[in-house]
Amino acid sequence: MPSNTSIVYFKHPTEFPVVGEHFGPKTDPDFRPVLKDGEFLTRNLVFSLDPYMRGKMRDSSKKSYSPAYEIGKPLDSRGVGEVIESKNDKYPVGSIVHAFVGWEEYSVVTANSPTQIISDARESKLPLSAYVGVLGMPGLTAYGSLKDIGKPKAGETIFISAASGAVGQLAGQLAKAWGLTVIGSAGSDDKVDFLLKEVGFDHAFNYKTRTTQEALSEFAPNGIDIYFENVGGETLEAALNHLNTHGRIIACGMISQYNTTQPYGIKNLGLVVGKRLTIRGFIVSDFHEQYSEDFFREVKALLLENKIVYRVDEANGVGAAPEAFVGMLQGKNFGKQVVKVADL
Amino acid sequence: MPSNTSIVYFKHPTEFPVVGEHFGPKTDPDFRPVLKDGEFLTRNLVFSLDPYMRGKMRDSSKKSYSPAYEIGKPLDSRGVGEVIESKNDKYPVGSIVHAFVGWEEYSVVTANSPTQIISDARESKLPLSAYVGVLGMPGLTAYGSLKDIGKPKAGETIFISAASGAVGQLAGQLAKAWGLTVIGSAGSDDKVDFLLKEVGFDHAFNYKTRTTQEALSEFAPNGIDIYFENVGGETLEAALNHLNTHGRIIACGMISQYNTTQPYGIKNLGLVVGKRLTIRGFIVSDFHEQYSEDFFREVKALLLENKIVYRVDEANGVGAAPEAFVGMLQGKNFGKQVVKVADL
Repeated sequence: MPSNTSIVYFKHPTEFPVVGEHFGPKTDPDFRPVLKDGEFLTRNLVFSLDPYMRGKMRDSSKKSYSPAYEIGKPLDSRGVGEVIESKNDKYPVGSIVHAFVGWEEYSVVTANSPTQIISDARESKLPLSAYVGVLGMPGLTAYGSLKDIGKPKAGETIFISAASGAVGQLAGQLAKAWGLTVIGSAGSDDKVDFLLKEVGFDHAFNYKTRTTQEALSEFAPNGIDIYFENVGGETLEAALNHLNTHGRIIACGMISQYNTTQPYGIKNLGLVVGKRLTIRGFIVSDFHEQYSEDFFREVKALLLENKIVYRVDEANGVGAAPEAFVGMLQGKNFGKQVVKVADL
Repeated sequence: MPSNTSIVYFKHPTEFPVVGEHFGPKTDPDFRPVLKDGEFLTRNLVFSLDPYMRGKMRDSSKKSYSPAYEIGKPLDSRGVGEVIESKNDKYPVGSIVHAFVGWEEYSVVTANSPTQIISDARESKLPLSAYVGVLGMPGLTAYGSLKDIGKPKAGETIFISAASGAVGQLAGQLAKAWGLTVIGSAGSDDKVDFLLKEVGFDHAFNYKTRTTQEALSEFAPNGIDIYFENVGGETLEAALNHLNTHGRIIACGMISQYNTTQPYGIKNLGLVVGKRLTIRGFIVSDFHEQYSEDFFREVKALLLENKIVYRVDEANGVGAAPEAFVGMLQGKNFGKQVVKVADL
């Protein structure tokens, strides 16, 4: 067996995690895993980096929807790997699986959590990263929450923050396909250009050069009906100001609040009463049963027909994962952040 | 015709309204209304004062669910009156009606908004004030929102703020009847005693002498499932901390934020994502169609069987209305605030 480099969790951060202090690479020079019945070993090809993982970097006594990362263990994520050893008949050697793997080169997988074989992986026109992005957790997040919480109706207006990110870019295209006017915010002029010229948003703006309050006044003179919330803070406050009666907030994430000990105070929450708004948080597994199949079929078809644009930001090699993760939390990624570990 | 004293709206307040400056009594010494077809004239007996009316004291250019009060006109409210002149066959002279009336002795009613004849008013054991309280808008508010947004399940725990108020006291008793553990907060030891000894709450506390954060830690060691929100601010923040996964917030009102130009900033709204919470605002008319009949039948039966306690705070005479209204906004009322105008 060759050596195995993993990104290991060292210490809970209170603000932005620091590479080397809170997490970093560790190499096992002589990796000889002994598989138990039901387990299999993957050679990892690609894995996902997602903002929700910052919430797992916490003391395990603080409960949340996703268990805390364990100090001293590798971080984990949805990924795609090749089975190279197996004690599980459902996942034989040679199969390509979409599963929870470590941020590492090789992982022992128990298949307790959702694991699928990608049967057409070797001949598909889609990159493997699609399975952890537009066809994976972020994709279902966009699709399920938009349908279930957003309840979009043709003719309505949706505002999406972090719109060029893993969830935002698909949410925008689905909303557009379903007949909505789509407004997005992002953190650079390049991202705004991408949203307008490649993704097909109706309006987009750079929140670093103009306020969301002002941009929504211009782009949504009749208000917004749905706010797809990825960032929190002042953006949420502005969206509350512009939501119409019976507006809905899809509370997907609040990334602006993840890395600070001084969270922003939302001062206009009274509008929830006055405008009869609904705000709902969720996690992707809330939608597995109801939407998984429809989502996968619909979005895969759109991708294969090139009717959906989906931009991926690929870091190269497992060693690049920590920097890429911090960069993503700071908005430096452009598109869905993944780590490419190896070629198929 | 005798004289007619009305409480007239003078000016928009920015903080607490001031009697004489923002609203006050005005007497028409020679009140001779000329009815149009469809109108009728009521001699008012009782009318309701409710916190939502503070939201109507605003510039009409600011939209909200309820139209702004008009400068120079009497304020209005749900009330009960006797029809003493009529150009509407559905509401003949002598009938007792539950309708929107002015804060005044006599009102011309158009019956555009929901108007019901109380056929048993003269022989009923229930006080007329019940029709603007526990059997009226506040009652349906508690019943409909609890069912539709709270989705209560036996064995769950609910926390209700402003629990001795018009909505809170009924919400608590319904939740109790449906098998929940009920915790309430109120602003005086007398109110807390009332909740514990007369209304039958499981736990109650005075938010002026201990923090909601601390009280919920003691009374809800396993968290709360529903928060019936009437006050906003720090209370909401504490409730967010204690809500369980998939918890629901019934956003009925945020009275602590109605009379200030410096609203409180809610700093832990990220918990909506982490705990998959739902927050929903509403107005009572959202529930008219679905719940009105069930509500009226169920709650009237419970009242007549003395299975529901319902405390009313009665101000005497139309001239007492402005002070009573400001007192209610400051939490000085004890129970549902009404104004008794005249005897039947």
